[in-house]
Order: sequence, then C-alpha cells, then structure tokens
Amino acid sequence: MTFTISKANLERLQELVAQQRDEELLEAVRDIHPADLAEILDQLDLKEAQYLFERLEPELAAEVVLEVPEDRRDDLLGNYTGKEIAEELIEHFDSDDAADMIAELPEGVREEVLANIEDQEQRKEINELLTYDERTAGGLMAKELVKVHADSSMLECVRELRRHADLIDDIYVILVVDDHDRLVGSIPLKALLTTSLRTPVKEVYDPDVISIKAHEDVEEVNRLMEKYDLVMLPVTDDRGRLLGRITIDDVVDAIREEETEDAQRMAGMGALEYSYSHSSLWEMVKKRSGWLVVLFIGESFTATAMGFFEDQIAKAVVLALFVPLVISSGGNTGSQASTLIIRALALGDITVKEWWRIFRRECSVGVILGLILAVIGYGRIAVWSQFTDIYGQHWQLIGLVVALTLLGVVLWGNLVGSLFPLLLKRLGLDPATSSAPFVATVVDVTGLVIYFSVASMLLREILI
Amino acid sequence: MTFTISKANLERLQELVAQQRDEELLEAVRDIHPADLAEILDQLDLKEAQYLFERLEPELAAEVVLEVPEDRRDDLLGNYTGKEIAEELIEHFDSDDAADMIAELPEGVREEVLANIEDQEQRKEINELLTYDERTAGGLMAKELVKVHADSSMLECVRELRRHADLIDDIYVILVVDDHDRLVGSIPLKALLTTSLRTPVKEVYDPDVISIKAHEDVEEVNRLMEKYDLVMLPVTDDRGRLLGRITIDDVVDAIREEETEDAQRMAGMGALEYSYSHSSLWEMVKKRSGWLVVLFIGESFTATAMGFFEDQIAKAVVLALFVPLVISSGGNTGSQASTLIIRALALGDITVKEWWRIFRRECSVGVILGLILAVIGYGRIAVWSQFTDIYGQHWQLIGLVVALTLLGVVLWGNLVGSLFPLLLKRLGLDPATSSAPFVATVVDVTGLVIYFSVASMLLREILI
Repeated sequence: MTFTISKANLERLQELVAQQRDEELLEAVRDIHPADLAEILDQLDLKEAQYLFERLEPELAAEVVLEVPEDRRDDLLGNYTGKEIAEELIEHFDSDDAADMIAELPEGVREEVLANIEDQEQRKEINELLTYDERTAGGLMAKELVKVHADSSMLECVRELRRHADLIDDIYVILVVDDHDRLVGSIPLKALLTTSLRTPVKEVYDPDVISIKAHEDVEEVNRLMEKYDLVMLPVTDDRGRLLGRITIDDVVDAIREEETEDAQRMAGMGALEYSYSHSSLWEMVKKRSGWLVVLFIGESFTATAMGFFEDQIAKAVVLALFVPLVISSGGNTGSQASTLIIRALALGDITVKEWWRIFRRECSVGVILGLILAVIGYGRIAVWSQFTDIYGQHWQLIGLVVALTLLGVVLWGNLVGSLFPLLLKRLGLDPATSSAPFVATVVDVTGLVIYFSVASMLLREILI
Repeated sequence: MTFTISKANLERLQELVAQQRDEELLEAVRDIHPADLAEILDQLDLKEAQYLFERLEPELAAEVVLEVPEDRRDDLLGNYTGKEIAEELIEHFDSDDAADMIAELPEGVREEVLANIEDQEQRKEINELLTYDERTAGGLMAKELVKVHADSSMLECVRELRRHADLIDDIYVILVVDDHDRLVGSIPLKALLTTSLRTPVKEVYDPDVISIKAHEDVEEVNRLMEKYDLVMLPVTDDRGRLLGRITIDDVVDAIREEETEDAQRMAGMGALEYSYSHSSLWEMVKKRSGWLVVLFIGESFTATAMGFFEDQIAKAVVLALFVPLVISSGGNTGSQASTLIIRALALGDITVKEWWRIFRRECSVGVILGLILAVIGYGRIAVWSQFTDIYGQHWQLIGLVVALTLLGVVLWGNLVGSLFPLLLKRLGLDPATSSAPFVATVVDVTGLVIYFSVASMLLREILI
C-alpha cells in the first residue's frame, strides 16, 4: 500500500492551499507517509509548500523536513528563526538527525539553535555529536539506544525498553555494558519474548557483539554492516565504552550517496551537492567546467606532442588518419582498468598492498587485449587496401605501425588505468579522482609519442 | 570486536589441517564469525579449505557457505552429491538462500537436490521461489515470517513468535493478515513489550504497512526500502495475499552488486560475474574485449572520416595537430553527461518523460561549457603564436576554427551523452550501456566531421 502522488492529488492540495482551507488541508495529508509528504512539498511551488509546511503538527513537520531534498529544505526553513528551529523541529529529532541538520546551518543560526534547545541532555548529546567528523562512525551515530548492565535480569531489559520505547523508533537489539560502561554484548529483541524475565542477562547475551570505534571511517561502517548483515552497529570510544549506535537505514543512504559521488568523480567532474534534478544550472557548470578545463589543458599537450612530429605527418598524411583510433583504444582500455580497480578498492576486494600482483596480472590482460586490437587493426588496413589505395603501396608497413602501436598503447593504458587509482589511494587521496577521462588524457598524450616513435622507426627513409 | 585474519592465524590453521588434528582445528574456528570463516576458506588452498569445510558442523557449514565467494563455493561443493547438498546444507538455509543456491546449480544436480529435500514444506517453498525471476521482488523474498490474524490478541503474537524464533534469525516486525490471508497491517516487535498481552491485535497494528507485489522489479524494492527506511518489506500477490518478506541485508547486497555492475557497464565492459580479485584472467579478457572490439570498430570510422579530408590535411598539416584535443573535449563532456543521467535514472531522480526539460537544460549547459573551452582554446593558440610560428600566419583563423569546433563538439557531446541513456531506457534497455567510452566513440567520429567542415568553410582558398 504505497501512496503515489498523482496530479489530481497535487492539484487538490494546491486548491486547498489557495483557498486557505486549513482544516481540510490537514485532513488531506493526515494519512500520507512523511516520506511521501516530503515529495509533495518538493513538487509544490515554494509559497504553497511553505504554507502547508508551517501548518503541519510539529512532530510531523520534523519527520517530513528530514526527507525533503536539501535545497528545498533550506527554502522551507528560510523564514524560521534559530529559536523556532530548536523548539519546533530539533526537539522531535533523533540526536543524529539533529546534529546533521545543525551542522548544515549557517554559523550564526547554528549558535542560536543550540542555545535554544531546552532539553539539557539533548543539547549535550548534539554538542558531542557535532565534534565528530561526518566521514567517521561518530559522525553517523545517534545517541539513542537501549542498554542494560550485565548483572541485571531480563526484566530490567523490558523495563529499560519500555522507558525508551517512545523515543527510539527502531529498536532491534539491547546492548549490554559492564561497570565501566564498556560494551560487552548484545541481546536480540526476540530473546525477551522467548526467555523468562527472571533469567540473568549474563546467561542470555551474546558476547561476540561487533562494534566500531567512533573515529573509524564511514567506509569501515559500511563494510562491517554489509559483511555481518547487521541492522544496528554499536559505536564505542577507544576504551570500548559505549557511545552510540548506527542503524542500517543511515548506511543505505550513505552508500547510495557515496556511490553517486564516486560515479561523478569517475566521470571527470566534481561531486554534486544536490541531486541532478535539484542542481542549478550554475552549480552544474561549476562542478563540470573545473575538470573539463583541467582535462583540456592536459589534452592540449597532444597538440604540442604532434607538433614535434609535424614534418613526419606532412610527409605521410596517412599517419594522421589513425591518430584518433590509436589513442582512443588506449583510453578505452584505461577507462575499463581504472573503473575495475576503483570499484574493487571501494568494495574492499583488493588493497594497495597487492599492487605487484595487480601489476603483473594487468600486464597479461593488457598484452592480450592489445594483441586482439592489433590483429583487428592490421586486418582492417589489409582489407581496405584491397579496395582503395588510400594507404598507399606501403600499406603493410602502415598496418604494422598501427598494430604495434595498438599493442603498446593498450598495454600502457591498461597499466596507467590500473596503477593510478592505487597510487592515489596510497597517497591518501580519493582513487575515484583517477577518472576515465583523466586516464584517457594521460594515455592520449603518451600514446601519440608511442605512435610517432614507432612510425619514425619503421618508416624512416621509406615514407618519412 | 571484529576478528582480523592475521597471517599467524592462517598459518596455525594450515598447520592443524596438514597434521589432521581435527579436534584442535574445530576448537580454533569455533568462535570465529561465519563471515570471517568464509574469508578464511577463501584464503586457504583449495585442498585445505575442503578439508576444513567438510569437518564443520552442518549448521555452521551452511552459514559459512553462503558467505564464501561464488567461485570458491562452487569448488567447495565440487565433491558433494545432490543428496549431500540437500541434507547437510539446504536444510539449514532460509528459503531465499536455498532457492538462490539451487538456482545456481547445474541442471542435473538441481533436480537431485530438490528430490532429496525431506521437509515437504521446505521443498514446496523452494519450488515456489524458483518460479520467480531473480530480478523481481519474488526472486528476492524468503518465505519465513511471523504472521497473526487481525482478530487475535497480542498473546497470540508472542506464541507465534516463540514458535518461529529458532527458524527466523532476524525478526523485526509481525505481520497481520485477514481471513483471506491478505496483508492488512504490521506490529513492531517492541509493541509486544509495551502493551498488555490481552490487547486485541486490532488495536495495536499499524494499517499503513508498505508492501510490494511479487512481480515488481528489484529496483522498486530498493526504492521502497530506502525511501521508507524499512528493515523488512512484505511481499504479496496481486490480490494482496501475503507471500513472503524481503530483509534489508539482502537489499544492501543487491544494491552493491547493482552499483558495481552499472559502474562496469559505464566503463564500457561487460559486468563481471565474480569480484575483480576472483575473476580469472580469461573471464576478464572475455568481459573486456567484447566491448573494446565494438568500440574499436566504431572508432575506426574516424580513420574513414579523416580519409575524406586527407587533401585538406595534406595542405594544412596544422589542422591535424588539434584533432585529439578537439574530439576528446567532446568525449569528456559526453562522459560527464551520460554518467549524470545514468545515475539520476538509477536513483529515480529523473524519468524518461522529462527528456524535453533535460534536453533544453543540457543545451544551455553544453553551450556554456563549450564557450569556456572555446575561449581557452583560442587563447592557447594566440599565446603560442607569439612565441613560435608553428600555426603560421593565419593563426587567428586556425584559432577560430578550433574555437568554433570546440563549441559545436562540446554541445554535441553533451547532448549525445545526456539523451542516449534516456533513449536506451525508453527502449527497455539498460541505460548504463551508454557508457562513457561508447558516447566518446560516437562523438569522436561526428566531432571530426564537425571539425573539418568548419575548417573547410573558414579556410577555403586561404589554407586549403
């Protein structure tokens, strides 16, 4: 039973907004899931969206605002003072969502919001969360969790759970701590229903609980939750004391975001802040032009490189005809290789330490792929030469130059494509920056040098 | 507390295997998480891995075998008969894992395994699951779930839960059905602990349960679970009768797999069956060479296109120098555009219906990006011409040709890159096939025609 936002639905809401029929309006949105309501707020005109948003129950508004795309959210909150944000929205948030939203506010508003959070406990928690880098486990965690002491009984678990049931939406696991608040184990919720309440926690909990340190990277969070099929991952400090927990829904969002940013970097552009449809024309040009210009300047060395061989080209124009074919083959191979390596690194399938194994393997792959294209390339020239004499009487030599160059360029492109991401990773940079266009540019420039060097050697005193 | 597979650990296990000290071996692996044990089985030599695997308790072996990379799994099961697979492994699987594994077995073994499943109920469930396409919700679902009738009480929920607690690892939600087994609502597990057991289910359950039809696409599963932050999604038939459920861990795996396959297609290659490090050299060459050859043949039209302009090149060799620069700019822009559109389609951010809006927008972006590169391109030629006379006395005209071509090629590349994925999607094909290398190839060939046409017009009777 999912709600689809039909045009009729949307028009009906617009009508109610226009006629300021508030009661009917609230009635109409009452049964809509917050995630759907967020989509509606995104599709309405800004004025309409603000009108509707300001009339929602604070609790619902708080749920909805988290689901609205960021740019629309900024607009919706445009009229809100820091005090209003604190009192009407933040109060209803989980600590992680509260910290995330506050972190994104402009400096001045941020202070005002923090100062206006009345619940001392919540303010303290948010302030703590704000100290973590958003790319770490600490930056992803929420403070809300259900924990019991290892010396208590299952009855205490039930009590603790009832105490927090309103505050925590998705409780799957109860965490067990020792005297020093160190995490020692976990109890799945279903155990509460299948064991007697008099049973000591000691006898029930699973001591093999998987956890993560707050300073560890988000990618490690993803890796652990995926590998061990977790729905909740406890976060501890370096001494093992329980700090918070991360739930799977946050990780799914984080994975999607990370994948999209990686894909954009791999296509040779800056990662967009908002989604494609929510990015302004200006933002799009800004994020794309930077890398395009860098690539253009890099690629302009092809003109320089070819300049050195201008005389040869003048003597054997036929050489120029194969320039795009030869260099693009290196670029395509490099694009495959860099994508394979970037993905394998992201998935934890390979590590930088294995570079030597990868190097040897990609040498073999490069040689085989290069041979395949070399044979096809020579074949094409041989076949064409039967029908035209565009390649002249020395077509066999031309074919040989093209074939040898293809072998060299494909091997070279494959090695650049596979080793560059490893090098970037080793230097602590994002391997995805070693994008297909970047690799292609490097290979284009060097590929031309390979091509004309081979040509100079084989055609000297024959054609050039 | 996660286990890291140290070299020492691995060597210790190898020693125990070599000396056939079975008891100590089983003791050594007893506390290792199945996911880690799977990694160990992957890192051992095949003989060692088989020795260890065959000695594991059936229940543990069943858990481990699901986590082992597919190629190693095939090897481990190489010695197993269909009967052994059925009795020692399948029996301990959830229905979804059982069906997935059986679906991957060779035809003959598959029949034998199915015939040897003793539990009639399980065999029926697996047979049912095998009828669904693996790209649909039905193909992803498991039959194990906890359901109660809407007319029962919370006590019945607890009873039902206890009855299934052993069989179902991760119970988060109890589903509520009516007389016809139609899904009418859900009860979060924590409600069992916060309401009296005498309360009727009717008063507790949430009727706004989100579900999916069995024939719907996996992408819709992902979309729903992400959008509504679900850990479990019930699956129904077309009449709303409850068939099974999908859990978030399966979706996380599916998302990662899908993203990796997309990335590989977008890099101009076939999607690998196994991970990078588990793919054989031969598999790698096979998956990469196909597209490389297609792209090579496509790109070889650049030689044909340039052949038409051979006379012009002979008269103005300087034109050849800018060929790589001009065409790669179109390719790079196209690569950005196609990635943006493919990702936005995959995330449900845009639909094919919006093509006209996208077309107009990408026209603007393309013109702006083209102008930026045109200015830089002209500037480069102007600056160089102050120091060398490589571009001759007509450098302004050459600069103008390059600048105009850049504008045209970048705009063209941007439009091809953004509209081609939409076209593929419209035709029911995978938009990711419209890879950056593919777009670059199309743009290279057409870009050359643009370049030499502009040159013919502007340089006629001056240089050529």
